[in-house]
Amino acid sequence: MSTPSREIRLAARPHGEPQPSDFELVDVELPDPGPGEVLVRNSYMSVDPYMRGRMNDAKSYVPPFQLGQPLDGGAIGEVVASEFEGLEPGDVVLHGLGWREHAIVPGAHARKVDLDGLSPSVFLGVLGMPGLTAYAGLLDVGELKDGDVVFVSGAAGAVGSLAGQIAKLRGTTVIGSAGTPEKVAHLVDDLGFDEAFNYKDGPVAEQLAAAAPDGIDVYFDNVGGEHLEAAIHIMNRDGRIAMCGMISNYNATEPVPGPDNLMQIIGKRLNLRGFIVSDHGARLRDLHAEVGPAVREGRIEFRETVVEGLEHAPQAFIDLLRGANVGKMVVKL
Amino acid sequence: MSTPSREIRLAARPHGEPQPSDFELVDVELPDPGPGEVLVRNSYMSVDPYMRGRMNDAKSYVPPFQLGQPLDGGAIGEVVASEFEGLEPGDVVLHGLGWREHAIVPGAHARKVDLDGLSPSVFLGVLGMPGLTAYAGLLDVGELKDGDVVFVSGAAGAVGSLAGQIAKLRGTTVIGSAGTPEKVAHLVDDLGFDEAFNYKDGPVAEQLAAAAPDGIDVYFDNVGGEHLEAAIHIMNRDGRIAMCGMISNYNATEPVPGPDNLMQIIGKRLNLRGFIVSDHGARLRDLHAEVGPAVREGRIEFRETVVEGLEHAPQAFIDLLRGANVGKMVVKL
Repeated sequence: MSTPSREIRLAARPHGEPQPSDFELVDVELPDPGPGEVLVRNSYMSVDPYMRGRMNDAKSYVPPFQLGQPLDGGAIGEVVASEFEGLEPGDVVLHGLGWREHAIVPGAHARKVDLDGLSPSVFLGVLGMPGLTAYAGLLDVGELKDGDVVFVSGAAGAVGSLAGQIAKLRGTTVIGSAGTPEKVAHLVDDLGFDEAFNYKDGPVAEQLAAAAPDGIDVYFDNVGGEHLEAAIHIMNRDGRIAMCGMISNYNATEPVPGPDNLMQIIGKRLNLRGFIVSDHGARLRDLHAEVGPAVREGRIEFRETVVEGLEHAPQAFIDLLRGANVGKMVVKL
Repeated sequence: MSTPSREIRLAARPHGEPQPSDFELVDVELPDPGPGEVLVRNSYMSVDPYMRGRMNDAKSYVPPFQLGQPLDGGAIGEVVASEFEGLEPGDVVLHGLGWREHAIVPGAHARKVDLDGLSPSVFLGVLGMPGLTAYAGLLDVGELKDGDVVFVSGAAGAVGSLAGQIAKLRGTTVIGSAGTPEKVAHLVDDLGFDEAFNYKDGPVAEQLAAAAPDGIDVYFDNVGGEHLEAAIHIMNRDGRIAMCGMISNYNATEPVPGPDNLMQIIGKRLNLRGFIVSDHGARLRDLHAEVGPAVREGRIEFRETVVEGLEHAPQAFIDLLRGANVGKMVVKL
């Protein structure tokens, strides 16, 4: 017996900003799961900025997507058939084969989840990869300490909004930047940021200086470019920069020059450290222990931008890179 | 009774490359040392690239030099009169009041040195600030490990030549860059570097790739600019960059754009860390314990470029910024 499904394939490698024509929606017939595999009906899939890098044919920390092959990424769904001991139909599992309605997943690569009343999408967001990115980036990479002033760029995004809130849970001062007045208001009014500004309103360096009269100690960088330069400029001695992403560069077709003030790294003894969430899986337990209760009690506010239907996933991804989302963007399948 | 002396003052703040007219040689009469002070006849003074930054009127990790005031910096000399308990005439002391023939030094700021047959200048070089910079930068900031491949830029300079040799003492593979064929030969023939290249011979990225087929794990950066970009490009995962100096930028009159490949910091989990030797004074003991014997036994090769006479100190400093020195540049007074 086979299962009809649909999947999104990479039709062309984007040049600059991805276009709808770079993607292809394809009908497929999935076989029954083989030994050790499960068949999952995906309920939600994730679209994430890092996927843009995988669309280039470049060596990176994850292999590039292949032309004519389905894309992949975080997804959650329900097991509908199992040949894997330990998972049975009805179980909800997290796995890495998104961008498709059904998936044949090696059971060992599927992680069973207890929803406990939460939407499955939460496990693609605040209690999933973006949450873990924020948690490990802030605490382990950024070495957050009591009394720190924290700056988060892309602060209305999935990772940024959690980084800021986790910093607030820890009692530190938090400043955020975002790209629309609505997002800026959301940061302060809903997420409890101490200060926020719209980076399109003027030079980042000036707005950041106004928001952080005592400088900053930790910069959680999702953006790079002008934001990174401004953060280096205003950082206090021994400041730490957790380099999580550079969304300002992702669609660039030419190399983008770096900040012109790197010399300050020396005098201020700054520490810039890149990180990838997949190295920090051991912290998922701590994330669930510390942040999970806050989520259930409503002390962590998280928004989702939910797009319905696999056929709209490419546009959702394109919109994500343009900053159209508030909070975690997911596609409901 | 007063002591006639001469000192170099900052006559004008250099714009770009310093000019002789930015300096002024002045005759002075020093009073007798007051309570707690010593009068020192300096035998050697240090000229160091970091002094260029202090000639600008800019906030930095050390206060700027003041117009019309004498410059200062590392020096070593003999106590000729003492009002400080614990130091007496004939003692050799290290202190921070260079750029002058005699100095009145607070006794608490003078460190007595046992020459043990070595030239006083050694304590301005391999067993002094440059040595400590190399030692702490490589081991503590760069976190050197067995099996690492180390790249040192400005490798024929005072700090670079020691960083490379300390890395060799620790048994790692070392690649160096310098700016003349003679310096390149010196690195390989005299200092034991595994590979070296002349950065003026072609793109640094290409030359570095040829010299480091397995990539690099630690970059000891004295130069910044194109060197930093090339190092980021070729670095292995979890690589560390000890940011010591950016001599390529020091004379710049306009901001210099940074490397265009900072995004690689994320994917490769790189760690860029700025440092200042004055934070690492506690390591001087370890430097003397580990490197001191190697110096006395001739296993550490160090060269000095010695310029004679205080009146030539400004030109020595100008030449230093142009790369005219091999090894530590000092002025004999």
